[in-house]
Amino acid sequence: MNSAHTWVNPLRDATDIRLPRIAGPSGMVIFGVTGDLAYKKLLPAIYDLANRGLLPAGFTLVGFGRREWDKQQFGDYVKQAVRDGARTKFDHNVWTHLAEGIEFVTGNFDDSGFDTLAARLAELDAARGTGSNWAYYLSVPPDYFATICHQMQRVGMSHSAENSWRRVIIEKPFGHDQESARELNEIVNAVFPESAVFRIDHYLGKETVQNILALRFANQIFEPMWNANYIDHVQITMAEDIGLGGRAGYYDGIGAARDVIQNHLLQLLALVAMEEPSSFDPAALQAEKIKVLQSTKPAYPLNKSTARGQYSAGWQGSEYVKGLREEDGFDPESTTETYAACTLLVNSRRWAGVPFYLRTGKRLGRRVTEIALVFKHAPYQPFDDGQLESLGQNAVVIRVQPDEGVTMRFGSKVPGSTMEVRDVNMDFAYAEAFTEESPEAYERLILDALLDESSLFPTNAEVELSWAILDPIIEYWAGAGQPEEYPAGTWGPTSADKMLRRRGHSWRRP
Amino acid sequence: MNSAHTWVNPLRDATDIRLPRIAGPSGMVIFGVTGDLAYKKLLPAIYDLANRGLLPAGFTLVGFGRREWDKQQFGDYVKQAVRDGARTKFDHNVWTHLAEGIEFVTGNFDDSGFDTLAARLAELDAARGTGSNWAYYLSVPPDYFATICHQMQRVGMSHSAENSWRRVIIEKPFGHDQESARELNEIVNAVFPESAVFRIDHYLGKETVQNILALRFANQIFEPMWNANYIDHVQITMAEDIGLGGRAGYYDGIGAARDVIQNHLLQLLALVAMEEPSSFDPAALQAEKIKVLQSTKPAYPLNKSTARGQYSAGWQGSEYVKGLREEDGFDPESTTETYAACTLLVNSRRWAGVPFYLRTGKRLGRRVTEIALVFKHAPYQPFDDGQLESLGQNAVVIRVQPDEGVTMRFGSKVPGSTMEVRDVNMDFAYAEAFTEESPEAYERLILDALLDESSLFPTNAEVELSWAILDPIIEYWAGAGQPEEYPAGTWGPTSADKMLRRRGHSWRRP
Repeated sequence: MNSAHTWVNPLRDATDIRLPRIAGPSGMVIFGVTGDLAYKKLLPAIYDLANRGLLPAGFTLVGFGRREWDKQQFGDYVKQAVRDGARTKFDHNVWTHLAEGIEFVTGNFDDSGFDTLAARLAELDAARGTGSNWAYYLSVPPDYFATICHQMQRVGMSHSAENSWRRVIIEKPFGHDQESARELNEIVNAVFPESAVFRIDHYLGKETVQNILALRFANQIFEPMWNANYIDHVQITMAEDIGLGGRAGYYDGIGAARDVIQNHLLQLLALVAMEEPSSFDPAALQAEKIKVLQSTKPAYPLNKSTARGQYSAGWQGSEYVKGLREEDGFDPESTTETYAACTLLVNSRRWAGVPFYLRTGKRLGRRVTEIALVFKHAPYQPFDDGQLESLGQNAVVIRVQPDEGVTMRFGSKVPGSTMEVRDVNMDFAYAEAFTEESPEAYERLILDALLDESSLFPTNAEVELSWAILDPIIEYWAGAGQPEEYPAGTWGPTSADKMLRRRGHSWRRP
Repeated sequence: MNSAHTWVNPLRDATDIRLPRIAGPSGMVIFGVTGDLAYKKLLPAIYDLANRGLLPAGFTLVGFGRREWDKQQFGDYVKQAVRDGARTKFDHNVWTHLAEGIEFVTGNFDDSGFDTLAARLAELDAARGTGSNWAYYLSVPPDYFATICHQMQRVGMSHSAENSWRRVIIEKPFGHDQESARELNEIVNAVFPESAVFRIDHYLGKETVQNILALRFANQIFEPMWNANYIDHVQITMAEDIGLGGRAGYYDGIGAARDVIQNHLLQLLALVAMEEPSSFDPAALQAEKIKVLQSTKPAYPLNKSTARGQYSAGWQGSEYVKGLREEDGFDPESTTETYAACTLLVNSRRWAGVPFYLRTGKRLGRRVTEIALVFKHAPYQPFDDGQLESLGQNAVVIRVQPDEGVTMRFGSKVPGSTMEVRDVNMDFAYAEAFTEESPEAYERLILDALLDESSLFPTNAEVELSWAILDPIIEYWAGAGQPEEYPAGTWGPTSADKMLRRRGHSWRRP
């Protein structure tokens, strides 16, 4: 047991573990507040936090943008976002109280805009008791990071006085390769120390992802088998059924590996493969993740250990959908991959020789994210010929989404007078086990940022190491022409199946 | 993989594992055919086997007893038993065919009765092609074993000619201590070689019990943790809610330890604790069970490592029920225990230091049989104070009956913004996983006896070793006065709870 590292509520009885953590006096500025992410996720999450009583009484939300909105107009916008997206029930009193602290500052990312903003924040500190504690949420493309950071520095917004704090929250993409990531980190870290930078990987806000730590380190039953002695290979899958219509501006030229593997899937790999941290303090946890990422390399040769694909027209359920190159805004000659798979090796005593297969894709058979640890066969099985024909490899599957839970697959005797063994599933489902509602990932992460609890945010070291793993693969693909086509609604290109078959494995059909 | 050791159907394709095993030409004589067991279990099981096509075409069932029944009258009796107790649907054609081979021989256990019986069996061999292969089911109290065996020997019924077989099937109680068990074995083995003796422990016919072998030895995921490094203790429970009204003749003076622990629970212990057999050949399997039983001893001192109780009047659900000493036929001063618990140690490298707690009782909270392997806590848990307060010990629970299946209990993160961990269950249920129906235990065991497949029958060595484990406990109790009373509908005497508390454990409430 380690000492508490989070803000301690003086009213909290140490034995009352159910009392939630509540943010101290603070406010948040959102840049890009009229964008999709703010509307769908950030504004509803802030309301939900307020409704759960997890925000301080004087919490203040400042929108900054070019619109000529007054307090009332912005308030109406936020209210609509809350009505559309909040998970908790709309409570008039909670809303009225929250709305008192909702402000809008009109301005561009030029000098005068930030002068106005800084002055307004100072007024609000005086008026609302936010204690000069501000989180700046950069919900804007990374091209703007440099300008915004420099402006904040110029007007003193980035500088925290004694007993107050200033933090910046940024969203992916964190660059498009190791070099650009390093440049971006240098820009941000020139203004905000790394301890004040919170990089959102919303996957880390998911209950099922945090539960990887609970499963592994609170229990006795998993960890003894969590190594190369018992595990044959690991499959980490994030499959989506949606296509990329309307997202060309973000996605074309980026592709599935940069969009998903570099961040979400490598973070899942790190949590699955890492050693036990000395505590869940952010630094202890990050040190272990960094160690795993340092040990992780692509398997070679890359033409056999990786696969990529691009969806062509096909049937998604009962709907006939376009191929990527027919989607609005995409280059008809686009070589952007919508499916990416790779074989990684974790060069450590625990994992040597165990392939980690990562895959992600759009327009696949269904939406599912899971981590499957597939076990070796038992060293000897004292059964007769034929009795084990329906027995596959044992597996522990962490179902990240949807249908959150854990499945264990193993062989059980088939009822009847012979000793035939067949695979069965043992199942644990969040929805059945808990009456507690899972907080939405953004709720959890925004609260953590306000509380200076950085465990669930990747550090710059993690971001750069993740690119170091992926760069050789992306570089190899850049010289390898067009990705293989796969029809929408299938499970990806045939090269991905071949990639596993070479090692005697096959993808799970989740 | 080992070679087949069972009767091989020449029509069977070795790759077709679903083709069932079918008994060869044979018949069965039941002694005590008018008793409860025959009516409720044996006769229905024989019909079910016939209905599933697992009996030979000329299968012949001979009832032997004092009743002056002819073929038709006995046939009607069997038919009624089938109508009342069979699990498969009544099929007129199957019944008509089976009924042709149903015969009754009237006689006492004296010379002339057996002369008649032997002559009739010889006629039936000629008429029905039973091939002189006969199984004799002794569904009678053990007091009659000597007489019946001697008579069978005298008239040549026990002697198998070349290419034919004679087997005897006997039911518990196999004695009331090691010495009487040895005497009984000597009586039976003087007439039938041990390889021709099939002792029924109907628990071993249960799917969930046989599945212990499949779980342990077909899979990779359980066995690495199936030892004292990871397991804290084991609880084997057979709880019944029924009382002993009407069973005084059998039960008074016998008690729970002799009735259940000596056979069922020690067999479960043997299957859970044994090493991997070289194959599932009967001899290989029995050798491992014998080895475990040889290594198993009561923990001492017995006043602290055992507990016994006797139910007093109380509420079983909504019904007020009598105490044992008010039940019809029981001695009002009876010291017979209706609840027995003991702590056993298996002195082997695998299990040293792991207590095996066995308990059984009548008039307990509900009917349930289960084996729970309770794990040690993780060696270190990097969590904050309070986060693990709702986390118990991990457990794997084999649910023998009812609600057959396997449960794994472990800790999972409670949804919310703190890392609180709580026990959850992961569940596998036979009823959901398989469409195949589980054969009734007697079906399985009768078929196995006809097939000379003795894996599921305890040998005389196992019976005598089980008594050797239990004898010191029963002897200690004999000098310890009246058992502690426990009200009907509760979970047994307080001394049973104290027995576990001494070692820092507590009984599961199944």
